[in-house]
Amino acid sequence: MTNEQRLIDGALRAWKCNEERIEKFFRPLSEEQLQQEIMPGRNRLIYLWGHIAAVNDALFPLLGLGPKRYPDLDTMFLKNPDRTVPEIYTGREVARAADEINRGLWTAFTQWTTDEWLQKHTTVSAEDFAREPHRNRFTVVVGRNTHMAFHLGQAILTRPRAA
Amino acid sequence: MTNEQRLIDGALRAWKCNEERIEKFFRPLSEEQLQQEIMPGRNRLIYLWGHIAAVNDALFPLLGLGPKRYPDLDTMFLKNPDRTVPEIYTGREVARAADEINRGLWTAFTQWTTDEWLQKHTTVSAEDFAREPHRNRFTVVVGRNTHMAFHLGQAILTRPRAA
Repeated sequence: MTNEQRLIDGALRAWKCNEERIEKFFRPLSEEQLQQEIMPGRNRLIYLWGHIAAVNDALFPLLGLGPKRYPDLDTMFLKNPDRTVPEIYTGREVARAADEINRGLWTAFTQWTTDEWLQKHTTVSAEDFAREPHRNRFTVVVGRNTHMAFHLGQAILTRPRAA
Repeated sequence: MTNEQRLIDGALRAWKCNEERIEKFFRPLSEEQLQQEIMPGRNRLIYLWGHIAAVNDALFPLLGLGPKRYPDLDTMFLKNPDRTVPEIYTGREVARAADEINRGLWTAFTQWTTDEWLQKHTTVSAEDFAREPHRNRFTVVVGRNTHMAFHLGQAILTRPRAA
């Protein structure tokens, strides 16, 4: 491995670690358990899980990987607060969407060369990117990883505390 | 900037972003506000803030940067649950510790060459590191950044929700 590959590998390990923790937390929950609020009046677990999936799905267009795989997630879990959209995905549906999104992203992440990682993301102009080269795919993905951790920390609060 | 520097820069931006969000959240709180629990029976804000500082302080020895700056944080905010240690730092004391820890880490982070970033951390043996070169400083720091986000997500739940 070159130094560049080692740096990318470090970031990808952190991504995978979070992705797996999220899967391990949410996937075993029943539909009923997913209705639990993280705190009274706050988001339900199903909303947090769908929200993480929606935000990751938005990486496809942002990183130049084509359209969102599950654009409906946006309305249900991103643009509107929890409980304001009459019909949202079940846990089983979120699980399937998250799985496809994660696999699609991982395929790209593990194939890009360093130069591809350092390409601009799609919402920055070539002109702005010349001045601000940090607006690249790698920075986006590292930041999005902390987004996953942020909400995982919230979801985990629903776990009964060890005595 | 070389490609290597750009990759490191991307990770450092994510670190700085989290560090600043944490500062911005906790520092304006009064000692009384810091006594608030994130949920009934769970950690108080002062504990979360001290915990983040303690875990970051542990990076000094782990990354070969000398001893912990505030080893007392460990007992108060890491090894023992909240409310089990009779005397803990005040918010003002945590603020000062966090500030010194963050500045010390940032100085190292912004000075290391790529080779220095990819050196092994101190708790892996040279032999294991030869087999597992991902156990380097860069991977540690990227992972520790998600630790900050994880707890920031929890702390933010104490904010009144916008109507």
